[in-house]
Amino acid sequence: MSAQAPIEYRDADAEIRAVFDDIKRTRQVDEVNNFWKYLAHDPATLKRTWESIKAIMAPGALDARTKEMVYLAVSVTNGCAYCIASHGAAARKAGMSEAMFGELMAVVGMANETNRLANGYRVPVDAAFDR
Amino acid sequence: MSAQAPIEYRDADAEIRAVFDDIKRTRQVDEVNNFWKYLAHDPATLKRTWESIKAIMAPGALDARTKEMVYLAVSVTNGCAYCIASHGAAARKAGMSEAMFGELMAVVGMANETNRLANGYRVPVDAAFDR
Amino acid sequence: MSAQAPIEYRDADAEIRAVFDDIKRTRQVDEVNNFWKYLAHDPATLKRTWESIKAIMAPGALDARTKEMVYLAVSVTNGCAYCIASHGAAARKAGMSEAMFGELMAVVGMANETNRLANGYRVPVDAAFDR
Amino acid sequence: MSAQAPIEYRDADAEIRAVFDDIKRTRQVDEVNNFWKYLAHDPATLKRTWESIKAIMAPGALDARTKEMVYLAVSVTNGCAYCIASHGAAARKAGMSEAMFGELMAVVGMANETNRLANGYRVPVDAAFDR
Amino acid sequence: MSAQAPIEYRDADAEIRAVFDDIKRTRQVDEVNNFWKYLAHDPATLKRTWESIKAIMAPGALDARTKEMVYLAVSVTNGCAYCIASHGAAARKAGMSEAMFGELMAVVGMANETNRLANGYRVPVDAAFDR
Amino acid sequence: MSAQAPIEYRDADAEIRAVFDDIKRTRQVDEVNNFWKYLAHDPATLKRTWESIKAIMAPGALDARTKEMVYLAVSVTNGCAYCIASHGAAARKAGMSEAMFGELMAVVGMANETNRLANGYRVPVDAAFDR
Repeated sequence: MSAQAPIEYRDADAEIRAVFDDIKRTRQVDEVNNFWKYLAHDPATLKRTWESIKAIMAPGALDARTKEMVYLAVSVTNGCAYCIASHGAAARKAGMSEAMFGELMAVVGMANETNRLANGYRVPVDAAFDR
Repeated sequence: MSAQAPIEYRDADAEIRAVFDDIKRTRQVDEVNNFWKYLAHDPATLKRTWESIKAIMAPGALDARTKEMVYLAVSVTNGCAYCIASHGAAARKAGMSEAMFGELMAVVGMANETNRLANGYRVPVDAAFDR
Repeated sequence: MSAQAPIEYRDADAEIRAVFDDIKRTRQVDEVNNFWKYLAHDPATLKRTWESIKAIMAPGALDARTKEMVYLAVSVTNGCAYCIASHGAAARKAGMSEAMFGELMAVVGMANETNRLANGYRVPVDAAFDR
Repeated sequence: MSAQAPIEYRDADAEIRAVFDDIKRTRQVDEVNNFWKYLAHDPATLKRTWESIKAIMAPGALDARTKEMVYLAVSVTNGCAYCIASHGAAARKAGMSEAMFGELMAVVGMANETNRLANGYRVPVDAAFDR
Repeated sequence: MSAQAPIEYRDADAEIRAVFDDIKRTRQVDEVNNFWKYLAHDPATLKRTWESIKAIMAPGALDARTKEMVYLAVSVTNGCAYCIASHGAAARKAGMSEAMFGELMAVVGMANETNRLANGYRVPVDAAFDR
Repeated sequence: MSAQAPIEYRDADAEIRAVFDDIKRTRQVDEVNNFWKYLAHDPATLKRTWESIKAIMAPGALDARTKEMVYLAVSVTNGCAYCIASHGAAARKAGMSEAMFGELMAVVGMANETNRLANGYRVPVDAAFDR
């Protein structure tokens, strides 16, 4: 079994199917996306990753849309093409408008710029921020 | 004049003071933080960066608190110690509770993890995300 | 001669061929992979990079398989698609099983997550680690 | 309760103490390190992170020492000062000799270099790696 | 209007066309490249980004070629495929020879390597550098 | 011998002293900086790294000042505090004025910003750049 091919539901064993079923039920989708089909090569990582994401992405002090936008912001910063595609779709599904997307990208771009200006100018942390 | 020392208001010329004054007025603070005092070594960059941040961080389709939390998420991903300190303070000032901070960090951590799982398993983008 | 095209053995001069020959002999392969064919545009970098890799990747206190897995872990963290493909193949050739790959990815993912949690919570280094 | 202060065992509630106790028992240490004391501000993240690390870092197809060295390699690549200190200590405790550390750093350095050479020369993935 | 499609000149409104026209005039090109056509989904970001780049990339204390090479060095370090392609082309147009490109990549590769060696060995900043 | 302490010239063996002597001669300094004193824990890495840097940083198609500025740009992008301090000093020694530093930082900041805008908008590479 090669790590290079996705594991489809019809070829999956009971342990993997249980996770796929829970993803489909929780997200109300007909099929899991590629990420889970590849992760299924390691059932322990599949199960742990899904359970962590399920707990973390559930609405709490932050709503689901904000969480998906933060996920997208991190993925854009890291340049993960798959994650930008999948979490961009998820954020839109959770209600991110194109105006929100535009502002999100503007903040992400600016943060990446000023992170480097702070590094380059070797700016020391203000005492007020350490109190 | 060394790039290693901050430029204080009392030592700044009119061009720099105009930016410092606008920062203090906009943010309703008595003093600008270190980032601006160091950036003042290059007045053109000081002015452009401030005007960009002022425009980008103003409430729009996204509220100010969400924008500061996204700024923090990017800074944490990049490991910029100064920016984590300053935008953590800014996000709290804009209303981020400790419960929100906890959930924000959980999302940032998980996104950084799954970004690498997607890289490592070489997951191709689902056709559904490219439509 | 464009930097966009690989330099094939038949078109290479003696200096480049000497490096290609040493790669083929050392790795017991019939052809060098694309990385070397592109690097051949700068013979000095080609030679220095190959000699460094040859010395560094030889078994020593760490065995070849562990070294290839570390190389893969770094490449996954940086999101270098070419390097993930080539060092994934090299690690498997050096004996990395799919179970090892799964555990490697789990560690890489977790390290990328906790690196950000440590950043975000601004955790100071324990005195015990600085002794 | 500020996110800026560690939560000590004596001030922790039962939920946090249960995690701290399991860390101390599993790692056979008298006190948990700062990472856990800060994460305790978010008990759900504390518990999930510890349980994930406990499962992932247990010896399996890869031994504990190799896993700690991979953790260190990722932390060095990301430049996480806290994680470099703590996982450097953990790797040494798990048997990493100074010779192993030297070779590990050489591989990490070289991988970071060639990741960028592959990016810069825009090297396409060899067909052989995609089979 | 989807963020996934470029906005062509013929479909652009007056605000966007004004920016496109200024880019074409400044760079003496017949058509703007994809980056601007996608950014046009957010006219405010389009305008601000162009005006910042126009000011920053104009020859000053550093010439245009050096600036484009630095832009390329950053893009290679971050692994941004689009930016490597576009700023590689721009640097060549500004006079970067293949010999310069080769030396640039050698420096970028080495810097990425020694950045990690400095991290991994936890090297403290020399007093001489902080004066 | 701990990896945490620098190796001073007086305590170094002949192999390490030979490298230290060459660094001092080449750079015309009285003492090597901390980076080399820590790397001396692994004499093979010390020697290889120095010889690579010596070859790469020598003036060629690019002058020494440009090379040091590129080194600084990469270090700022990666957030390596040690390298920012040491290569900032080296670039100034090689003739980088404060005006040049200001422009360099502006380019580095802008490149880091637009790298993420290109990622986030998922901009495809223009056909013209692939010719």
